[in-house]
Amino acid sequence: MSEYLPGLAGVPATKSNISAIDGEKGLLAYRGYPLEELAANSSFEEVTLLLLDGELPTANELKDFDEQLRSNRAVKYNIRELMKSLPITGHPMEMLQTAVASLGMFYPASECLTDGASCEDLQYVHNMTVKIIARMATIVAMWKHIRNGYDPIPPRDDLTYAENFLYMWTGKEPDPLLARILDVCLILHAEHTINASTFAVLVTASTLASPYSVIASAIGTLSGPLHGGANQKVVEMLHEIGEPENVEAYIDARLANKEVIWGMGHREYKTKDPRAPILQSLMMDLMEARGGKMSKLFEVAQVVEEVCEDRLANKGVYANVDFYSGVLYSEMGIPTDQFTTIFAVARSAGWLAHWREQLSDNRIFRPTQVYTGESNRSYIPIDKR
Amino acid sequence: MSEYLPGLAGVPATKSNISAIDGEKGLLAYRGYPLEELAANSSFEEVTLLLLDGELPTANELKDFDEQLRSNRAVKYNIRELMKSLPITGHPMEMLQTAVASLGMFYPASECLTDGASCEDLQYVHNMTVKIIARMATIVAMWKHIRNGYDPIPPRDDLTYAENFLYMWTGKEPDPLLARILDVCLILHAEHTINASTFAVLVTASTLASPYSVIASAIGTLSGPLHGGANQKVVEMLHEIGEPENVEAYIDARLANKEVIWGMGHREYKTKDPRAPILQSLMMDLMEARGGKMSKLFEVAQVVEEVCEDRLANKGVYANVDFYSGVLYSEMGIPTDQFTTIFAVARSAGWLAHWREQLSDNRIFRPTQVYTGESNRSYIPIDKR
Repeated sequence: MSEYLPGLAGVPATKSNISAIDGEKGLLAYRGYPLEELAANSSFEEVTLLLLDGELPTANELKDFDEQLRSNRAVKYNIRELMKSLPITGHPMEMLQTAVASLGMFYPASECLTDGASCEDLQYVHNMTVKIIARMATIVAMWKHIRNGYDPIPPRDDLTYAENFLYMWTGKEPDPLLARILDVCLILHAEHTINASTFAVLVTASTLASPYSVIASAIGTLSGPLHGGANQKVVEMLHEIGEPENVEAYIDARLANKEVIWGMGHREYKTKDPRAPILQSLMMDLMEARGGKMSKLFEVAQVVEEVCEDRLANKGVYANVDFYSGVLYSEMGIPTDQFTTIFAVARSAGWLAHWREQLSDNRIFRPTQVYTGESNRSYIPIDKR
Repeated sequence: MSEYLPGLAGVPATKSNISAIDGEKGLLAYRGYPLEELAANSSFEEVTLLLLDGELPTANELKDFDEQLRSNRAVKYNIRELMKSLPITGHPMEMLQTAVASLGMFYPASECLTDGASCEDLQYVHNMTVKIIARMATIVAMWKHIRNGYDPIPPRDDLTYAENFLYMWTGKEPDPLLARILDVCLILHAEHTINASTFAVLVTASTLASPYSVIASAIGTLSGPLHGGANQKVVEMLHEIGEPENVEAYIDARLANKEVIWGMGHREYKTKDPRAPILQSLMMDLMEARGGKMSKLFEVAQVVEEVCEDRLANKGVYANVDFYSGVLYSEMGIPTDQFTTIFAVARSAGWLAHWREQLSDNRIFRPTQVYTGESNRSYIPIDKR
């Protein structure tokens, strides 16, 4: 038996050709393309197709895929009714896990629940993927309105994925710069090798469970505070700090107490998180477009970044993708506790690429255990204990 | 980096003291107690507490636990409304994943969604466990009635777990022998080391996700046709055979075509599945109690077993736990496609024991990958592809 490594750290659990991280150099690439190039030139729709198929699509392939996404944005009204029956006090990630699990009943993947033969059918896998990626954004945006007691804003099919997503939150014509920023945020969060939620995809998929069950499992895994949710913590921290002049004292107190500074450092990167400078630059664009008139949150974030750069850069700790994405989502009017649901929408692209890859060479996950318990005990009647 | 083993076969993924299998000898023990002794002497309530705490409870401990289970059987009427909004054509396992995911919103585990400190609080873990195990049976039995258009039968608190479960399906005073058989079925399915769904528990739990999200993830994993669902296949096969005189030709044709005989053999046991003879003996008790007047399904099952014993015993292939449990559930009036939901109810005991064990020494799962994809590609504008 191989050595026991807690959390399977360093243990290869799959062969994959979807993405790669070079933590020493601070590089992340999807299908071999550096993330910086994709963020600068591509769209979430194109990146999704790249993740799924392995190649940049032709213009026609992208057009077809985009049309499929657009025509699958709407969800049945019974899903709206189901969402209305959920307590508004619940966490949006619990809502999302519930709603996605229910999709399998509303839009059956019944082929996958029988002998699994059709699971190898690429067209089937492609269709399921489109339906899930298209509808998750709708469900997430619907929840903002439903939990406030309003009817959700139906999706539009004349907008890009990011534009429509932004539109469904606000009901207003999407601001082009904010839509572009959201598009880039979705690209940056779409995939990140084998983390806990993507690993949950592989484990659940390996029993040939339906893709809805697979994504619901991944959403549950992402909901844990050790995985998703860091950008929510960043914004909560910025609100707690309150004013730019409070930053230094706050950060130094946390450092002295060895407390986490949310949004700083990343276990995978020994140097800068390659996604952070991309968002930092978009944050600057947004500030410029607004003539320097930014929200208090934005101002506090800038000072936090400066102070942390001063205190932590010599230890190789820099702002990560979560630091900026939370601030940017706040500027879009998205409630703090829904940030992780946007992460899930973006990551659904990577999860479904891994679902497809798992099916292409499937073996059910059944690791073993180091048994440390009792042996050879005999039952004792309850009156003799 | 360690060697890549597909499905992590033989790779230790956890230290555990909950259960152990000796596949060569055909032994299964929970906390060191052989399953045969527990099935003969114990109850599902006691076995659940044994799995959770590691020791057989005193009479007072068991009484307290049983009272907690009894008082948590009811579910809020909004959960019933949510279930009514689900399509009756969906698979019951999809319903169960949806409903359990929603429980986190109805009965918040909010402590677990913040910094996780209270996750180490044993009382909190114990309370969540009771609530989930008590309510899952209610939800599963409710679905039988809701999907037929009837109001569900509310649980009773004057019955044991198995008696009440049976009562909620039929609305009749539970037959003592059938209740005992169901109790034993629950004991036999409560735990089975690190299979795919239990592994999903560990992965999802490792991010400190709420126990509802953890169990929803496990249910999704169990729903796949390579994992749960074998006893459903057994009964479908028996119905397909139809008459005792068809058995020989049917089995021989399947063997000649190298097709699976559902309910025969088990990958973990080189000899007999230790759970099978226990259920076989209960099947005989039931036949005797009915003066030999059994259903057609029961008669066909007996002949299938004889024919398979003749053809396969020399290869070490015997009837497994799924072969008998499906036949017995059919005798209880439980619909075939709900068998896997009963498996999930029983296994919730083991899943929650593993949840607790994972929290006691947690490390987030983040295995690595063997990267087999492209590197160093450059983005090509769409008109140049």
